[in-house]
Amino acid sequence: MSTAASSRSFKLALVQLLVTSSKEANLRNARSKVLEAAKNGANVVVLPECFNSPYGTQYFPQYAEPLENSPSSRALQEMARDAKVYLIGGSFPEEKEKKYYNTCTIWDPKGERLGVHRKIHLFDIDVPNKITFKESEILSPGSSPTSFLTPWGRIGVGICYDIRFPELAMIAARKGCVAMIYPGAFNMTTGPLHWELLQRARAVDNQIYVSACSPARDPNSSYIAWGHSTVVDPLGVVVATTDEKESITYADIDLEKIDEARQNIPVTSQRRFDVYPDVSAGN
Amino acid sequence: MSTAASSRSFKLALVQLLVTSSKEANLRNARSKVLEAAKNGANVVVLPECFNSPYGTQYFPQYAEPLENSPSSRALQEMARDAKVYLIGGSFPEEKEKKYYNTCTIWDPKGERLGVHRKIHLFDIDVPNKITFKESEILSPGSSPTSFLTPWGRIGVGICYDIRFPELAMIAARKGCVAMIYPGAFNMTTGPLHWELLQRARAVDNQIYVSACSPARDPNSSYIAWGHSTVVDPLGVVVATTDEKESITYADIDLEKIDEARQNIPVTSQRRFDVYPDVSAGN
Repeated sequence: MSTAASSRSFKLALVQLLVTSSKEANLRNARSKVLEAAKNGANVVVLPECFNSPYGTQYFPQYAEPLENSPSSRALQEMARDAKVYLIGGSFPEEKEKKYYNTCTIWDPKGERLGVHRKIHLFDIDVPNKITFKESEILSPGSSPTSFLTPWGRIGVGICYDIRFPELAMIAARKGCVAMIYPGAFNMTTGPLHWELLQRARAVDNQIYVSACSPARDPNSSYIAWGHSTVVDPLGVVVATTDEKESITYADIDLEKIDEARQNIPVTSQRRFDVYPDVSAGN
Repeated sequence: MSTAASSRSFKLALVQLLVTSSKEANLRNARSKVLEAAKNGANVVVLPECFNSPYGTQYFPQYAEPLENSPSSRALQEMARDAKVYLIGGSFPEEKEKKYYNTCTIWDPKGERLGVHRKIHLFDIDVPNKITFKESEILSPGSSPTSFLTPWGRIGVGICYDIRFPELAMIAARKGCVAMIYPGAFNMTTGPLHWELLQRARAVDNQIYVSACSPARDPNSSYIAWGHSTVVDPLGVVVATTDEKESITYADIDLEKIDEARQNIPVTSQRRFDVYPDVSAGN
C-alpha cells in the first residue's frame, strides 16, 4: 500500500480493461494492470463489469464460474495480495446451484474476500434500433446491498444498472459509506446520455464520492462499451475521467471533502423523515 | 388556453421575473408576463420563488401576507383567470398564526386555488466566504408533498431547496405526476454547481419532466439569484433554458416522451421494493 495514504485520504484506481474473448488473457492483463496501479500508489483498485468475459447473455454460461476456488476468484485473490491493495474485482458471470449471477467479489490486501455483490437490478433495456439487451434471460438477480470496510471508511458497491436506482447509494451513504463504486458497462446509447449524470446525481444527493469503472471500448465486440471511467466528488464535480481506450484512471479520495460538503450544505441533517420514510431504515 | 394543447402535450412557460423591492411593481410585472406567456400559447405558467419580495430573512416579515384574500393571492387569482392558464404562483412569504412560511399557491384557469405548497426543507446553508443563509431563523417549514391535477396529468411542486431531497420527486413520480416543478432561487455559488444537475438528476431517476423557475439576476440585491430557468425532459436532457436576465422560457411538455423513456429503460417496473422500501408508500 502506498505510504501516501493517510487515514483521511486514499488513492483510487480504475482499471479500464480491454476485455477479449480469452479468459486467460483477461486475467493476465487484469493482474498486470492491478500491479501497475499499486506501483503508482493506488490503495483501492477497481476492475470493470464482466472483466473476464465478453459482455453478452450468449457468453455468460460459457464463462461462468463458481465463487469458491475458481480460476477467476483465485486470480483476483492473488492480484489483491500481490499488489497489497483493496480490490473491487469488477464482475464475472457466477454459476451457483444452476443459476447464473453477475457477481462482484471484493478482496483485501491479504487476499481475504471481504464481500460479494450480486447485481440487484438486471439490465433489461429496449431502445428501438439502438440497444436491446435482456440480462434476465440468463441471469438471476441478487437481493442485498453490499459494502465493505477499509482503513479509510466503508465503501458501497453496485454493478452498472444498479446505479439507476437511487436507493442503493442513499442506503450506502446513510449507513456511513464514504464512496459508492460501480463496475459498469454502459453502451454507446446510454453512455453519452447518462453515465456521467447518474454518477454526479448519486454524489450530490448523498455527498459521497461516486465512481464507475468501464471496460475499454472494443468496436468489434457485440456489446460496445462507452468507456469513460470516472470519479465524482461529494459536490458532484468530476475529478477524474478518461476516454474510451484502455487506461488506468487515478483519483485522490479526500474524506475532508465529504465533511466540508456536509457542513456547507447540511442536507444530511435536514431530511424530513416525518414527511417521507428513510429508505435506509431496516437495511 | 392555447388550442395547440392536446391531451398529450402542453406548453409550459417559466417567467424569470426581475423582482424589486416594490411589491406593487412586482405584482404588476408578474401579471404582465403571465398574460404575455398565455398570449404565446402557454397552458401552464410558473413564477419564481419569492416573486413579490426581495429574498432575505430580513424582508419576510415585512412582505408577508395571509393566504386568504391578501393582495398577492388576489393578484395571482386574477392573473390565472384573466390569462386562462394553470398558474404555479412562485412563492411569497406567508403569515399564518404568527408563523411565517415560504408558500407557493397554485391556481386554475377559472381562478380557483388548486393547491398550497409550504417549503418543506428550509434553506440553511453556510459556505464560508461565499454564501450563508438561514431561512429557519424566520420561517417555519411545511410538512406535506404537494401536487395538483391538470387536463394533462398531475404536476408536483417543490420550492428551491426542496429539490436537494430526492424523495419529493420520487414520491411525485410514483404517484403519477408527469412533471415536478420548483420555483427556486439558487445563488452564484450553488447555481453553477448544482442548479442544472439537480433538475437532471430528478428527471432521469424518475423519468418525468423537471423544471425550475428562478428570479432574474439583480446584481444590486442582497441575495443574487443564478437565473437560468430550465426545463429538463424525462431522459435528463435540458430542452429549454435561459441566461440570467428577465425573460420567459417556453417548452412543449410531451407526455409521449415519458412513455417512451419508461418503455426503453423500464426502471419504473424494475425497482426492488423487496430490497429497499418504497418512499412513496403512505404518501
